[in-house]
Amino acid sequence: MNRPDLFNQIKKKDSYLCVGLDTDINKIPRHLLVHKDPIFEFNKQIIDATHDLCIAYKPNIAFYEALGPKGWESLQKTVEYIPKECFSIADAKRGDIGNTSSLYARAFFKEMNFDSITVAPYMGEDSVTPFLEFKDKWVILLAHTSNPGSSDFQVLRTDRGNLLYEDVILNSQKWSTPDNMMYVVGATHPDKMGGIRKLAPHHFFLVPGIGAQGGSLEEISKSGLNSECGLIVNSARTIIYASADKDFAAEARREAMKPPAKGCLAPGCSCPVALSAS
Amino acid sequence: MNRPDLFNQIKKKDSYLCVGLDTDINKIPRHLLVHKDPIFEFNKQIIDATHDLCIAYKPNIAFYEALGPKGWESLQKTVEYIPKECFSIADAKRGDIGNTSSLYARAFFKEMNFDSITVAPYMGEDSVTPFLEFKDKWVILLAHTSNPGSSDFQVLRTDRGNLLYEDVILNSQKWSTPDNMMYVVGATHPDKMGGIRKLAPHHFFLVPGIGAQGGSLEEISKSGLNSECGLIVNSARTIIYASADKDFAAEARREAMKPPAKGCLAPGCSCPVALSAS
Repeated sequence: MNRPDLFNQIKKKDSYLCVGLDTDINKIPRHLLVHKDPIFEFNKQIIDATHDLCIAYKPNIAFYEALGPKGWESLQKTVEYIPKECFSIADAKRGDIGNTSSLYARAFFKEMNFDSITVAPYMGEDSVTPFLEFKDKWVILLAHTSNPGSSDFQVLRTDRGNLLYEDVILNSQKWSTPDNMMYVVGATHPDKMGGIRKLAPHHFFLVPGIGAQGGSLEEISKSGLNSECGLIVNSARTIIYASADKDFAAEARREAMKPPAKGCLAPGCSCPVALSAS
Repeated sequence: MNRPDLFNQIKKKDSYLCVGLDTDINKIPRHLLVHKDPIFEFNKQIIDATHDLCIAYKPNIAFYEALGPKGWESLQKTVEYIPKECFSIADAKRGDIGNTSSLYARAFFKEMNFDSITVAPYMGEDSVTPFLEFKDKWVILLAHTSNPGSSDFQVLRTDRGNLLYEDVILNSQKWSTPDNMMYVVGATHPDKMGGIRKLAPHHFFLVPGIGAQGGSLEEISKSGLNSECGLIVNSARTIIYASADKDFAAEARREAMKPPAKGCLAPGCSCPVALSAS
């Protein structure tokens, strides 16, 4: 998917919501276990109930990998089922030496046809660029993540005068463009969002950390939105586990109808998302 | 596998060689393609030909993942086939927020019973510690990798006064011990090995970068060996693709008989590996 198509979808749906498919066999409603592939059945019903409200789906690959070869089959069926107009994100946090990253790129972009993949920056340029060689596919590079451990290394100040996550954002712009690169920026550091937006004014940010992790949608929207929205806000557990009963899909839909699926919350913001919501 | 068992094996076999199973369907001998699972058949014959010479096997997970669910079946069969006395390494470079890293740990340590997994440090403590909760299993944390991109972020000097990879080694020792943590230290930076050994005198280092990537075994052995060997030196392409014909297993064995499978090369070194080789 290219950038104009992504932005058009955001405007059309008045939404910048990504639904995280962190699908756990121990948490899905029990009545689904009679199905041959309960994980896919759960995802299918969640997608059916939410695809007009959200602009992206993000399967967290660990949840599928933990189930062995069967899990990969559920993942493959899920990505094929995601409607073509929705942006698909493989939350895989891969990254390895060049020839190995090429194989990961092939796995997620060709075998499974994801639009994008999350990548860890620690191994540098040649671990990231193989993913950038695919037209209309995206790298979503870890910058400032939402978890407690983000304070261990990401905020160290380096001899380039920046914090490490700032170096990651600045340096990676030498190998990529806002048309094939996004950054992971956690909602749990709202005070940092404005500064990060200045470093990458035109990029999309994938924002985890709303909901269960405690981030505020309003705060990150205020300083993170740009003229083409620029944010994709992930919500997983709050939506997909809104109910553990037979009404789980309807309850997921009810949760997904809240912002960011009903426009922008930034006070006085003039972005298209805000305008179309007002 | 625990540390004494690993060291005993090193002494018994007079070897610190790890064979990298970077098994590529496009590179294995053509006559294997008649088998139902050519990838596993190749690995099986390589393991049969080398298991008395090496102390570890390291499947590079990308090569299996690129093949979809079928690839995961080949991987599962491979890890089950690796002899119990050999140390198994899932070269996966995973790492995510705590609840997700727990799932990766389950996938590689419980579902597949690997002894160890490579983990990227960028997301910090809570992305690593879930892997440390498994008894006699190991994290092999990326420190100073062998690829060109290792100079992009890993060697930045931080406000703690260290290079970033040094911070990774020092900080991670607060959450782990030499009995459950190793570090990836590339052979392509031989001048750094001595300094890294000082930071982690008792840890094992997994050393990629010999052979195709240009690192020197002699140089890294000289400054990297400790009193319990402390090095696991990976060699993949040089060994497993020594021949593309029917003699591939015999040729792999011939390659695997060279150092580090025939003892230590460090001049004047008094480590058990060197002593048993002299």
